[in-house]
Amino acid sequence: MSAPETLEGWFSLHDLRRLDRIAWGQVPRSDQAKALGEAADLLAEAEAVHDASAGRSVTYSMIGHKADLMMLHLRPDLSQLHDLERRFDDSLLASFMSRPYSYVSVIEISRHGAPDGTAEAIEDTPYVQSRLHPEIPDHDAYVCFYPMSKKRDGDDNWYRLDGVDRSELMRAHGRTGRRYAGRVSQIVTGSMGLDDWEWGVTLFSDDPLQFKKLVYEMRFDEVSARYADFGPFYVGRRLAPDQLAEWAR
Amino acid sequence: MSAPETLEGWFSLHDLRRLDRIAWGQVPRSDQAKALGEAADLLAEAEAVHDASAGRSVTYSMIGHKADLMMLHLRPDLSQLHDLERRFDDSLLASFMSRPYSYVSVIEISRHGAPDGTAEAIEDTPYVQSRLHPEIPDHDAYVCFYPMSKKRDGDDNWYRLDGVDRSELMRAHGRTGRRYAGRVSQIVTGSMGLDDWEWGVTLFSDDPLQFKKLVYEMRFDEVSARYADFGPFYVGRRLAPDQLAEWAR
Amino acid sequence: MSAPETLEGWFSLHDLRRLDRIAWGQVPRSDQAKALGEAADLLAEAEAVHDASAGRSVTYSMIGHKADLMMLHLRPDLSQLHDLERRFDDSLLASFMSRPYSYVSVIEISRHGAPDGTAEAIEDTPYVQSRLHPEIPDHDAYVCFYPMSKKRDGDDNWYRLDGVDRSELMRAHGRTGRRYAGRVSQIVTGSMGLDDWEWGVTLFSDDPLQFKKLVYEMRFDEVSARYADFGPFYVGRRLAPDQLAEWAR
Amino acid sequence: MSAPETLEGWFSLHDLRRLDRIAWGQVPRSDQAKALGEAADLLAEAEAVHDASAGRSVTYSMIGHKADLMMLHLRPDLSQLHDLERRFDDSLLASFMSRPYSYVSVIEISRHGAPDGTAEAIEDTPYVQSRLHPEIPDHDAYVCFYPMSKKRDGDDNWYRLDGVDRSELMRAHGRTGRRYAGRVSQIVTGSMGLDDWEWGVTLFSDDPLQFKKLVYEMRFDEVSARYADFGPFYVGRRLAPDQLAEWAR
Amino acid sequence: MSAPETLEGWFSLHDLRRLDRIAWGQVPRSDQAKALGEAADLLAEAEAVHDASAGRSVTYSMIGHKADLMMLHLRPDLSQLHDLERRFDDSLLASFMSRPYSYVSVIEISRHGAPDGTAEAIEDTPYVQSRLHPEIPDHDAYVCFYPMSKKRDGDDNWYRLDGVDRSELMRAHGRTGRRYAGRVSQIVTGSMGLDDWEWGVTLFSDDPLQFKKLVYEMRFDEVSARYADFGPFYVGRRLAPDQLAEWAR
Repeated sequence: MSAPETLEGWFSLHDLRRLDRIAWGQVPRSDQAKALGEAADLLAEAEAVHDASAGRSVTYSMIGHKADLMMLHLRPDLSQLHDLERRFDDSLLASFMSRPYSYVSVIEISRHGAPDGTAEAIEDTPYVQSRLHPEIPDHDAYVCFYPMSKKRDGDDNWYRLDGVDRSELMRAHGRTGRRYAGRVSQIVTGSMGLDDWEWGVTLFSDDPLQFKKLVYEMRFDEVSARYADFGPFYVGRRLAPDQLAEWAR
Repeated sequence: MSAPETLEGWFSLHDLRRLDRIAWGQVPRSDQAKALGEAADLLAEAEAVHDASAGRSVTYSMIGHKADLMMLHLRPDLSQLHDLERRFDDSLLASFMSRPYSYVSVIEISRHGAPDGTAEAIEDTPYVQSRLHPEIPDHDAYVCFYPMSKKRDGDDNWYRLDGVDRSELMRAHGRTGRRYAGRVSQIVTGSMGLDDWEWGVTLFSDDPLQFKKLVYEMRFDEVSARYADFGPFYVGRRLAPDQLAEWAR
Repeated sequence: MSAPETLEGWFSLHDLRRLDRIAWGQVPRSDQAKALGEAADLLAEAEAVHDASAGRSVTYSMIGHKADLMMLHLRPDLSQLHDLERRFDDSLLASFMSRPYSYVSVIEISRHGAPDGTAEAIEDTPYVQSRLHPEIPDHDAYVCFYPMSKKRDGDDNWYRLDGVDRSELMRAHGRTGRRYAGRVSQIVTGSMGLDDWEWGVTLFSDDPLQFKKLVYEMRFDEVSARYADFGPFYVGRRLAPDQLAEWAR
Repeated sequence: MSAPETLEGWFSLHDLRRLDRIAWGQVPRSDQAKALGEAADLLAEAEAVHDASAGRSVTYSMIGHKADLMMLHLRPDLSQLHDLERRFDDSLLASFMSRPYSYVSVIEISRHGAPDGTAEAIEDTPYVQSRLHPEIPDHDAYVCFYPMSKKRDGDDNWYRLDGVDRSELMRAHGRTGRRYAGRVSQIVTGSMGLDDWEWGVTLFSDDPLQFKKLVYEMRFDEVSARYADFGPFYVGRRLAPDQLAEWAR
Repeated sequence: MSAPETLEGWFSLHDLRRLDRIAWGQVPRSDQAKALGEAADLLAEAEAVHDASAGRSVTYSMIGHKADLMMLHLRPDLSQLHDLERRFDDSLLASFMSRPYSYVSVIEISRHGAPDGTAEAIEDTPYVQSRLHPEIPDHDAYVCFYPMSKKRDGDDNWYRLDGVDRSELMRAHGRTGRRYAGRVSQIVTGSMGLDDWEWGVTLFSDDPLQFKKLVYEMRFDEVSARYADFGPFYVGRRLAPDQLAEWAR
């Protein structure tokens, strides 16, 4: 079996942090304010992408026990993502936080069923460029991130399917997704050789019920029902840098 | 295969906390009392649902090592649940607690076998409304919460079953459940796209032996025997806000 | 498939604790003595069952890294077990301990192959009553506890077996067990709806080699070989309350 | 299927410890020296087997992050192993260590294919006695310990094999092992009913490459290829009690 | 089935560390500088291989939450690797670090399909010697490390394949790898009997996108698609010893 051609865009880091509330509670109020101010400045600088020629950065306040904060960074070079996490590591706020999870990947467009060698021809089109270097719309308040892999279990082995069959299954899956156009947008990132699962899926919406509706409907697509293994799901709410002070009262 | 229609009600947060007894033991008695008073006020306000137009909140003292406290919140908007957990995070008591688990989901009624498009017609009926926005009866002292998924393993793949077969299996399962009417009530919440398992099941009863009897009997239903994967089980006992001070002597 | 009838006796809590030796090592000797004295009193009161109309409580010093102490409590009501763990939680000794594991279940007698509705007829016989409310013989120095479930994997699915076949497999298993009569005694507790596995098995013997011999021999019974999934195994040695002071020198 | 006869020798405890370097680093040099001296005395006493009528004890410095120290104790009674771990627990050094793992088992000789009831006849022969109560040669600098179980997965179910087939598979495996005679020696311990896996394998050699060669070659034996499930592997280097002071500079 | 012949070179230790930022943040600046200087000296000495007759050592700053630092050491003897980790353990910086992972293995060349006994004949050729004792090129800024095993699941059992089939599958896999010559170099280490997985794969490249491209393409090779189980993936960026001070500002 030969691998489908892929196009890659920005590298991506999902950087999740959890506040150690016992340690944080022992910090004097004035130092807390200083720590939050410094961190807010770092987030604002990242969102302004002063550190690189291009990219995106947004921050989320996470719902549930898995994490408190998620910074999502997109940059042309992996080293820029590493610099961003190191810079946050060096902040006073980070010294009261653990890192329960992170995810390293790269934006990927898969060319299932497309003739070999045609990727190059379309790579420079504005449509493809906009998907490889996507906007993250400000009006979408909620995020849903989950990593996933394709199964290789006995008869349910994605990587042993005929390429034509794989393409048809992906196309059907795409049709389900398109029914959510305007309600949910997504970024798919590839992570083989970069992190533990094979792909990361990041969904954006103003209505978190749409995450449930979309993922539920897609689970009945054969590509999910038969071939998908899902990792943990992280759900959060957009947090502007200037909301950080209030966030960690 | 197409997904069965669903109706959704309130969003749900199961928020589990564990007291760090070493840290707590070093807090002066007067500060402990202050922390417990503040937390009791927060729980009472949540149970009074002053923070939203509608919803429910109840608290449980958990049995066994998995957690000490579980707050169960139901609210119309996910952001309201996030506000509730953040408000508790900011309390003094929470600064001596870790979060061993939580669960984000939304109340779901599944319309297995019902004709497509009929969900809308019934959504506004009082019966359906009462299931989407349920009471939590005060006289039920015990709670049992567990997340679960449907299997997708080789021949035992729920999502590849014919819709008619799925409906029949669910109906048989419902008949088992109805034999426990009056002894156990339940809320089923959907969590695809929101948390790691596919559904959450929350059972309420005055007699915890009924949890065992019900789950045991249901396990022999084909839908459980063949298609269910179960997560951890959490069992607790109702705790009124004004019992909190005595709870953490 | 219909579930076999069961009879239930006392609720059961296996409460395992681990001493945080770094924190404990910093406690002055006099406070250590006070903490051990208070805890020994709690254990003695529990063993005397002053807190309830009936029940049993015994304590074990656990072998290996998984836990240091296991309190095994049997009581008529689940709330009594919860009170016992909370009372221990409130002790000074508990504030230097974590809880690596616990298990909530209820003593169960399964009536595989018995005609439906006959359980009631035998429930009040002295033999059945003594199994539902068992003694824990003082002369048995060792305990072995492990939780387990029955498999539901492809063709190896206990819950899809015919009831007659299940009964025959359980009877053969019982014959293996009876060969250890006088050397090993056991309590089987059901935990569906109460904890993560389906059953707990607690073995008692003066000779821990018999645990190995019994479990080894039983593993070749078809009911274990084909249908059993085993959780962690905990082994300990009886500790009388008045040995506690020496136990944590 | 009936279980093959087994003979059992000494009980065994693999006791692994990890130094908490942050806590240890805050201990004054003089107290460190005192703690190391006390621990070295305990190890020397254990190696001299003053605590029991017979047995062996050796200590290893472990390679990699999984543990820092492994004490391997063999004794006639399980209670003697428990006394040894408790005595170490009570030392000052142990109060700066956690226990990442341990393993409780008993030396086992399996009589695959031997006629029933003949075990007794051979138990008192010098050869069998020397295997049930083995030497640990001083010149073997390296140890490799791993727990393992036999599979019970669908068609690959060791416990449902015919006894004759099991014996033939074990004999072939033994032939592979014997090719390493003089280079690697081993102790096999049974742990059903005592710990989480079914057996522990402890290998000794002066050349750690032989561990790799032996385990690699054996993996192609049908008994491993088809029926073995392996737990974590721990590798260490012999540490004499009087080397302990230098070990934790 | 008989095992393919293998040749072994240097032993290998992947030593991963994570800085405890809460503890580190409480260290005075001057002590931090002292700790970083001492650690930089240790890394420089290791890279200069003063401790052994031969070998390699390089250090990486790791991307994501899994670790902060990875030291990769190659040495003729396992005891030399153990000495290196112990020496780092004894440093002041290490007393503020935990060890989230490590990997013990040995460089391996597998002679799939080669006639038995020919390994010896080629072992001393310069080509084989250079693969058993490899350079780590200074210009390759990125590393990707992951452990892996071959499956033994039902029909997908690598160890039950005919040797000729195994060889052909490995040859096809090699052809995929060779398409990345000049872009990615790799070291394969065997770890049976030494660590939990069967092999470690360490990739080096100036362009981390090549890790993704290579691993993605290889996953469609039958040897990966059908027979590979992958562990965690660790990605990092080369860090020279004299960059350490700036690394942990």
